Amino acid sequence: MPDHQNDRDQPFVRTVMDVPRIQIIGITGIPEIGSGDPLADIILRAARVQGTPLESGDVLVVTQKVVSKAEGRVVDVTSIEPSAFASRIAGPSGRDPRLVELVIRESRSIVRMDVERGIIITETAHGFVCANAGIDTSNVPGDGLVCLLPEDPDRSARTIRSRLQADLPDSPPAVVISDTFGRAWRDGHVNFAIGVAGMDPIVDYRGTADAHGYVLKVTAIAVADELASAAELVLAKADKVPVAIVRGYRYPPGPGGAAGLLRDRSTDLFR
Amino acid sequence: MPDHQNDRDQPFVRTVMDVPRIQIIGITGIPEIGSGDPLADIILRAARVQGTPLESGDVLVVTQKVVSKAEGRVVDVTSIEPSAFASRIAGPSGRDPRLVELVIRESRSIVRMDVERGIIITETAHGFVCANAGIDTSNVPGDGLVCLLPEDPDRSARTIRSRLQADLPDSPPAVVISDTFGRAWRDGHVNFAIGVAGMDPIVDYRGTADAHGYVLKVTAIAVADELASAAELVLAKADKVPVAIVRGYRYPPGPGGAAGLLRDRSTDLFR
Repeated sequence: MPDHQNDRDQPFVRTVMDVPRIQIIGITGIPEIGSGDPLADIILRAARVQGTPLESGDVLVVTQKVVSKAEGRVVDVTSIEPSAFASRIAGPSGRDPRLVELVIRESRSIVRMDVERGIIITETAHGFVCANAGIDTSNVPGDGLVCLLPEDPDRSARTIRSRLQADLPDSPPAVVISDTFGRAWRDGHVNFAIGVAGMDPIVDYRGTADAHGYVLKVTAIAVADELASAAELVLAKADKVPVAIVRGYRYPPGPGGAAGLLRDRSTDLFR
Repeated sequence: MPDHQNDRDQPFVRTVMDVPRIQIIGITGIPEIGSGDPLADIILRAARVQGTPLESGDVLVVTQKVVSKAEGRVVDVTSIEPSAFASRIAGPSGRDPRLVELVIRESRSIVRMDVERGIIITETAHGFVCANAGIDTSNVPGDGLVCLLPEDPDRSARTIRSRLQADLPDSPPAVVISDTFGRAWRDGHVNFAIGVAGMDPIVDYRGTADAHGYVLKVTAIAVADELASAAELVLAKADKVPVAIVRGYRYPPGPGGAAGLLRDRSTDLFR
C-alpha cells in the first residue's frame, strides 16, 4: 500500500506504478480587460463557470497583456514626443520614432541594435533581455495604443495570488506571469516567466543522484519558464484564452521572484 | 450542435464552450537503454503497460539520451587523444582535456569560450548552439563513458515515427527529440527540440487577425520547443522517465525538421 504521507514529504520520489500526469487547462470566457478591472476575480469566476475551478497545487499562468491592461499600462503612442536619438535610429527602417522612444524609456540598456532592420534588443528596467522592451502593439483596442510590461510583474503575481488565497486559504496556487519573447540562435518565440509568486522559479538538481548513482553536477531547470511555455500551448494567440491552469505539477514552494531566472550580467557571455 | 467536420478543417477555431485541455503523461517502466535496442518498441510497450497507449494526435517527446544510447552514441573518454589546442584551453579550468577534445570534434564552430571558468559554447555539427556540444556525462553507466548527441536527430525522430506508424497507420503521433540546454541572459536550463518528425516546429500567426481585428505582424511560435519544455515537467531528472506523451495539442502537421528552429547565422545578433 503506498504511503501517501511519505509521498507528500518527498515530492520528487515516485513509485514505479505512479504515472506522472499533468493537465494544462485554458480558461475561456475572459472578457476584454480594462484598467482597474479585478483580474483575479474575473479569472476565478471564469474558471468556475467553465467547470474547472482553481485548486490547491495548481499553477496559474497569466499572460502579460491582461495583467498590463488591468494595471493601466496602456500608452497612446501619439502622445509621445520622440527624442533626437529615437528619431535617428528609427529612420533607416522607417519604424515609428515615437514607439522607438517608448522602447528606450522602458529600457535600462541597449543590448543589440540593427537600425537597418529596425531591431532593438534591450534590457528592460526589470532586467529582461528582449526585443522592443517587451512593448506590444497587438491586441490593444484603439488606434495608437500599445501595451507596456507591468511595472513589477512579481508584485503583479503576488497580488493575484493574494486574491486566490481568499478562496484557497491553506495553499493558494502558484502564479506565473508569462510573456512571449524571441531567443538568441533559435527562430520563433516562446513564452517565458516574467513574474513568479508562490514557487521557486528554478529546480536545482545539483547534488541529487542520477539513475546510476552518480551525482548530477550542473542541471538546474528553469521550471517557471517551462510552465510558461507549456501554458502557451493552450493559449489562443487571438487572445481569447489569456490564462491557463497547470494542474498536477508538483512545484517547489517558495516566495517566487523572476529575478532568479536572470543570469548575472558579469557571467553572461552574450551581452 | 457543433459542426465537427468544420472543427477539423479549422484547428485553431474554438467555440466559446470548448475548454482547451492538454495532458502530459510521463512513460514509466522504460529500462536502461543500450546500443541497438528497439527504442520505439520499448516505448510503445511501456505506454501500453502503464495503461496509456499511444493515440493518433499525440506528440511523443523522447529525451536525447535514450535516443543516443539506442544509437550507440556513447564514447569512452579514456580512448580519446586530446589535441594540443584542447589541452591548452582545458588547462586554466582543470577540465578533462579529452572531454574538451570531444567537444571540439562534435562542433563546427566555437561561439564563446571562457577558459578560466571552463565554459565552451559551440555550434554543433547540426547547428545547435549549446554548451559542450551537447555532450553529457550524467546518466551513462560506466566510468569515463559520455553521451554524444544523435548524429541526425531529425532522422532519429522519423525512425521512431515510422515504427509508431505500424501501430497507428492512419495518423502516427508526431515525434520530438528533446535536450536540455542553457540560454543566453537567463539562468537555468530548459528542454528544446533537437529533432522533429510529423509536425511543423513553428506555428506562424503572421497574417491572422487578433481579437480586435488587427493583423498580427510578427508572432511565430516555436511550438516544438514549447512541447519539449512542457514534457520536461513530467520527466524525472534521474532518468527513470525519459519519454512523455503530450495529448490534446492540435499540432500543425508537416514533415518536421529541427532546422526550422535555427536562426540564420546572418540575421543572428548573438554570434
